[in-house]
Order: sequence, then structure tokens, then C-alpha cells
Amino acid sequence: MYDLIILGGGPAGYNAAERAGHAGLKTLVIEERALGGVCLNEGCIPTKTLLYSAKIFDYAKHGADYGVTFADAKIDHAFVVERKNKVVKQLVSGVGAKLRKSKVEVVKATASIKERNAEGFVVVAEGKEYVAKQIMIATGSAPALPPIEGLADSLKSGFALTNREVLDLPALPKTIVVVGGGVIGLEMASYFNSTGAKVYVVEMMDHIAGAVDREIANMLEKEYASRGVEFILGAKVTSIKDKAVTYEKDGKTTKIEADYALVSIGRRPRTAGIGCENIGLKLERGAIVTDEYGKTNVPGVWAAGDVNGKSMLAHTAYREGEVCINNILGKKDRINYNSIPAVIYTNPEVASVGETTESIKEKGLDASVETVTLKYSGRYIAENEHGNGIVKIITDNKHHNIIGVHMIGSYASEIIYGAAMMVETEMRVSDVQKLVFPHPTVCEVIREAMFM
Amino acid sequence: MYDLIILGGGPAGYNAAERAGHAGLKTLVIEERALGGVCLNEGCIPTKTLLYSAKIFDYAKHGADYGVTFADAKIDHAFVVERKNKVVKQLVSGVGAKLRKSKVEVVKATASIKERNAEGFVVVAEGKEYVAKQIMIATGSAPALPPIEGLADSLKSGFALTNREVLDLPALPKTIVVVGGGVIGLEMASYFNSTGAKVYVVEMMDHIAGAVDREIANMLEKEYASRGVEFILGAKVTSIKDKAVTYEKDGKTTKIEADYALVSIGRRPRTAGIGCENIGLKLERGAIVTDEYGKTNVPGVWAAGDVNGKSMLAHTAYREGEVCINNILGKKDRINYNSIPAVIYTNPEVASVGETTESIKEKGLDASVETVTLKYSGRYIAENEHGNGIVKIITDNKHHNIIGVHMIGSYASEIIYGAAMMVETEMRVSDVQKLVFPHPTVCEVIREAMFM
Repeated sequence: MYDLIILGGGPAGYNAAERAGHAGLKTLVIEERALGGVCLNEGCIPTKTLLYSAKIFDYAKHGADYGVTFADAKIDHAFVVERKNKVVKQLVSGVGAKLRKSKVEVVKATASIKERNAEGFVVVAEGKEYVAKQIMIATGSAPALPPIEGLADSLKSGFALTNREVLDLPALPKTIVVVGGGVIGLEMASYFNSTGAKVYVVEMMDHIAGAVDREIANMLEKEYASRGVEFILGAKVTSIKDKAVTYEKDGKTTKIEADYALVSIGRRPRTAGIGCENIGLKLERGAIVTDEYGKTNVPGVWAAGDVNGKSMLAHTAYREGEVCINNILGKKDRINYNSIPAVIYTNPEVASVGETTESIKEKGLDASVETVTLKYSGRYIAENEHGNGIVKIITDNKHHNIIGVHMIGSYASEIIYGAAMMVETEMRVSDVQKLVFPHPTVCEVIREAMFM
Repeated sequence: MYDLIILGGGPAGYNAAERAGHAGLKTLVIEERALGGVCLNEGCIPTKTLLYSAKIFDYAKHGADYGVTFADAKIDHAFVVERKNKVVKQLVSGVGAKLRKSKVEVVKATASIKERNAEGFVVVAEGKEYVAKQIMIATGSAPALPPIEGLADSLKSGFALTNREVLDLPALPKTIVVVGGGVIGLEMASYFNSTGAKVYVVEMMDHIAGAVDREIANMLEKEYASRGVEFILGAKVTSIKDKAVTYEKDGKTTKIEADYALVSIGRRPRTAGIGCENIGLKLERGAIVTDEYGKTNVPGVWAAGDVNGKSMLAHTAYREGEVCINNILGKKDRINYNSIPAVIYTNPEVASVGETTESIKEKGLDASVETVTLKYSGRYIAENEHGNGIVKIITDNKHHNIIGVHMIGSYASEIIYGAAMMVETEMRVSDVQKLVFPHPTVCEVIREAMFM
């Protein structure tokens, strides 16, 4: 009998397991693939490994702007992939070590909730039954693969790729079509663009980057367009077959021949086959319904991470997992979904937190938008010969507190957590004015914006 | 008649002038050299320009670790210096434009306070008199140049350099001796090491990097030693002449022949010749005595920046200048010297804020130190093949709030402001646990440290 069984060893699951084990709960994690989940094995980490190599390659291309010249710059894709595997392996083994240290048991199996009985919840994993007082579901998400003509066969033949296969290509493509201009699509478009491929991004909406501040999304699009990425917006993909992607736009049908098609049009919570129906778990549009405490409709059953369909970000999953454990331990805790940062690791990076120019209009909030060029930063100018980055600050007009921050430019990924802190702690403009930011940095433009 | 005359157009002066002008004060800035002061013209910004070129050159050297190879990597020092001049010119002109926009008058002259009379304070600048109700002194600092044998002549002959001349060398040295292992010395040592010079750092203390957390200072020393920088600690320089630096260590005298000697053993407030004595201004060890409101002992006279000898950092100067203006405007304001971040822009970067392992012992504070490897960050591992960076968190044992954060590793410069925010707002460990940091980032190790 366990205190807690966690289904899924990704960011939500492994982190929650570690906290639970550390707090003395007898905890079991059941994971069917590798510890670390999609994030560590097929998402955040492997992409960042690839993108860092691409960044170094980019530096070489632009080195002359900074007085540094090279001959014969080459990127060895096979080496990059091998190194990525090494990095992933190191981190997966780190997760395993942490779980062992917290005395968490790990079973590698596909698991399903069988029933709730007098003892607790019964989970079946490859024929064996495990019982726990409480359950946390953290089965994550899988790529959305709609019934596009030819897609199923193209996935089998290896022409169509998901986030998983795209990371292990044996050689660099000459041409690749990215279907879906969200975070995954843009990051991989960035990698293949840097490494010399002709990249097409086909997106159904009239803009890329989903809910990102529109002006910033447009700047990112323009930047990559100038580097040769072809963006086809407002287009509906009608078939992915015979080594080609066909789309309709403005009533016209166009076919792009390519080496590969990356399908990155979104992700769906993984709720099928895990026995939700056996305990009466409430789902909505395929996601497990949770509140800000991580509770489901079934007492004793918690859910965290992509499976709740809310934020679909690894760091949200971490925090949701922690919230569940704290509440299980009787330490009341809740997550604030308004102050969760998000990053796109393109070059320049995009990072954001809180309300956007668009969301304040939609919600009818009384708020102001201040847009400031990163050229106020001496460091930004020193390090970006042709940069045009910006930071946007959204403030509530009544309380003068910061409710949104959005950036495009260098270091945005590492700067945004401080902005998230401002949003979370409801800092006012006058509070930030009193803080001292180090000089010269890019982050100090956030402070400077408070004086405009 | 001015509301305010500011002596010095560096970070303290120009920023205060802009805020004052913006608030409607009739403001005059008198600057004898260039707007932007040492920071912009001969300090923070030019060094960062040089260091960025060196960083790109470093990437090339280590590119193979990440699958990127080059032939024939070269750094064109003359181009780097020319670009540095261009960046500085752009930023200086930006400061000028900001001051014009705030209706601040600027006079280029050497100024001195003549007297206080019934009208106000009288300032003389190249024969002309200006009168103001209040004065802010922001004359900054100059390199400390002690009476070392031969130094004066070597400065004249061009063998000895200060932070000013070192930025405009016509060609890269083969050998350079850096006298003084503080921030300026280490950053320039880093540049010359990256560009291929043999670098010696001679330091009087038994460690480099001044008041930086000792363990981190030692890690930085070890890293650069492994790249060929020779550190000579606990050594007293006895002469700088005949193209050689001579020092005594452990009773032994050694002479190093070199192309140049950079003298970077500290900076002294610039209080001579500005008429402090004419209005009875109180000095201590050559610095104008101020309180946390920016007040001097003479009502109506304020001082900000290096001239008060307190923190000697550009961003402290900014804030001190703002504090003076707020208090002049009747909006009571004070600076908290405990939450000022500091950065060394070496590669890896070092950044810190608040109490250190050493300072808590000296002060007898009841505090704990948590040291965490940056290898907890997947991004750090993805981007640092041989990195061993750390973050140290110092917490008060009674209130469990964060009183110090110290880092060595990538992005430290852009991460530390958030840590400074934690120290300034007296955040507790449990508060930081509830924040969501983006994944994968290096900064998230700060959060992870809160669970140890």
C-alpha cells in the first residue's frame, strides 16, 4: 500500500514524487517511457541542446560584425544529435538519482487506474496491481495529429515528424515544412534555418506564436523572414503525402515538396487508456478538470501538468505537482496561472508573462502599455549590431501594478522570471523604481520603462 | 538662476539631471569631458563591447565541443576598438538627446563651487559664474595611482595604462601585467587572455575579486589559471618601469617584462579642485560624506555616485542620483545599500548581491549558506560542456528570508536583478518556492535551491 501513486514521470510527476518522498510519503511513480517525460527526452532540453549549437554557428556567421572572422564554418549535425542524447541521458539519470535519494519507487510500465475500493485506488501496470491512498495523474500530452490526408502514412514512412522524431534526424534536411507556427514549430524552424535548410512555416492563424503579444510575434516573424524562412499564414494544410505538403490559402491550393514535414500544431492531454472512466473522473475536451489546488472531481485524485490542458508548460507542471503534494500534506497551496512566464528559444528569444496588449482589450481591463526599445541598454547595443528588441510593460491604471511583461531580445529567457515575480507579488511601478538593477544589462530596460 | 546645478555628467549626474528636468526643475549639468562619464566612455560599456567580441572568439575556440567547427579564427583588435568607439558615440549622443528632451542645459567645462551667498550656490566654470538653489556633486572617481617607483613616467611613456588607455591600444599585446585583481583588472585580463596574450595578474591580497564570495572568487581564479592566466597573489608591486613590473612576494623580488602594465588597483573619489572647502563640505578619506538620502553636511548640497566612495558602481550612482532628486522634490526616498547587485563580466560571469559567506561570519549573523551546482539546470548542461558553475543562497535563520545570492556561470549578469529583488523585498524561502520560473533556464536553480 502506497501513500501516493503518480502516473507519469515527467516534470509534474518526477518533481512531485521527489517532494512527496522527501516529505516521507511512500510514493510510487509509474512511467511507460523514460523518466523526465517529453520535456526532458523529446522537448525542452533536447531542443535547447540543438539550438545552442545553432547559436554558436550563428555567431560565426555574424562574427565579422564584431571583428571576429572564421573560415569554413561547419555544423556537424550527427555530432549535435549525439551530444543531445548524451545531455538527455545525463539529466534522465539525474532524475533517477534524485528519486532514489527521496526513496521513491519507480516502475517502468504502462499503467491504468482499475478501481477505487475500500483500501484505496487500484492501479494496474503490466498485469500487476498497486494500491494507494491517493493518486496523482501526470500523464502529460501527445502531439495533436488531426486526420489530414496522408498524415498517418507519412508518419509511418518517416516523411512526417513529430517533436520526437525531428530531434533524431540522421542528416540535415535541405527543405523542411513546419506545419504549425507555435513554440515547437518556431524553435525547430530556427534550428533548421540556422543550419542552412530552406524552411517553410505553414500556420492556420494569421500570425505565429499563438497567444504571444502580437507586435512581438510579428517582429519575430519579420526577423526570420529576413533570414529566409517562408511564412505561410492563414493557410489550411490539406495533405501531407508523397514527400509534399499541400495547403489551401485564399482559395488557392499550393504544394511544397520537401525532405520532411514537422507536424507541430498543438498537443493534447493524454487521458485515454489510463482508466479515468473507472473512477468517474471528470474530463473536458479530453483534459482532466482540476482547480488551482490540483484537485480533480474525485477526492484523493489529483492531476498536474499537461494532462489538465491548462498551460502545457513544463514549469507549470512542476509547480502544479508541488501544489498537489503540499495540499496532500495538508499545507494549503494554490497556483496562480496569471504569473507564469513563457519563453520561445529562438534567436532573438521571446519571453512573456501576464496580460498582453490583446488580452487587456479582450478582458476590457483598464491598463496601459509602455513599449521601450532595448537600445536603452548599453549592453544590448554592445552585443547586438542589428538588434531591434523591445520590452513591453502592461500596468493596471488604477493600482499602478505590473500585470504583464513581454520581451524580444537577448537574455529574455533568463530575465523574465524577475518580471514574473513583479506580476506575482503585484509590484507597483514605484516599487520597481526603487530597485537597483545591475549596469550594464539588458534587464535594466525593464526598470527604465518604469520612468516613461 | 538654476534650481539645480549638477557637477558631472556620468551615471549619477546625467540620470539625475534627466529626472530633475523631467520633473520641471531648471537644471544645469557641467561636465569637463564627455557625457556618460567613466562608465559610458571608459568603463562599463566599452569593456562590454570588447568582451563580447572576445566571447564570440571564445565560442569559436570551443565550438567543436558543440559540433561547430571553424578554420582560421581571427579577432581584429583594431576593428573591435573602432566598433567600441562607435558604440560609445551612439550611447553618448543618446544621453545628450535625453537631456535635451528633459530641457536640461549642458556646459562642457571644468567647474568648481566658489561660495554660498544670499542667492544660492555659485559655481565657476571656465571663468563664467552660474548660480543655483541646490547643488548635486557627481564628479565620480579616478584611478588610484600610488607612488610606485617609475609609475608616473611609465604612464607618460605609455607602458603603464589606466582603464582609459587600455581600451584604445593600437595592437594586441603579447604580454600584459595587470596590477590589481579587482573587477576592472579581471575583465581586461579576460579580454587579453581570450585574444591570445600572456596575462599576469598581480594582486596584493591573497585572493582576487575583492569582496566577492571567496569560494566563487577562487573558482574564477582557477578557471582563468587553467586558461593560462598567471595569478600572483599576496604580492606587492615595487616598480613599474623599463617595460617591466617588479613585485615582492614572500621576501623574493621578481621582475616581469611585458608590453604593457594595466594599473587597476582601485578608484578614488574625485573631490579635489571642485571647491568642497569653499562651502565647508565634510569629507572622509577623500570622499564626500552622504547619508542614505544623498544629503551632505551642507543643506542644499547633495552628492551621488563614486564621489561618495560608498559603492563605486554605475547602477548605485543612478539610484543615488534619483534618490537625491526625489528628496529635492520633496518625495522622501532612500537607497538600501544591502540589495545592490554587482557583476564581473568575465566568462563565466560572476554576479552577487547581499551578504556573503564571509560577511555573515564577520557580522556574526545567524544565517545559513546553501550551495547548489548549476548542473541542476538542464539548460546549463546543454550549454556548458565543461561548466562547474554554482549559486549560493544565504538565508537568515530566524526569518528565513534571503539576504544574499551569489553566482558564477552563464547569464549570471542578467539573473542577479531578480535575486536583488528578493533581498530588497525581504522574500522568504517559502515565498520563492511559490514563484514559477521558466524552464529550462539557469535562473531556475535559484528556485531549486529553496528546496534543499
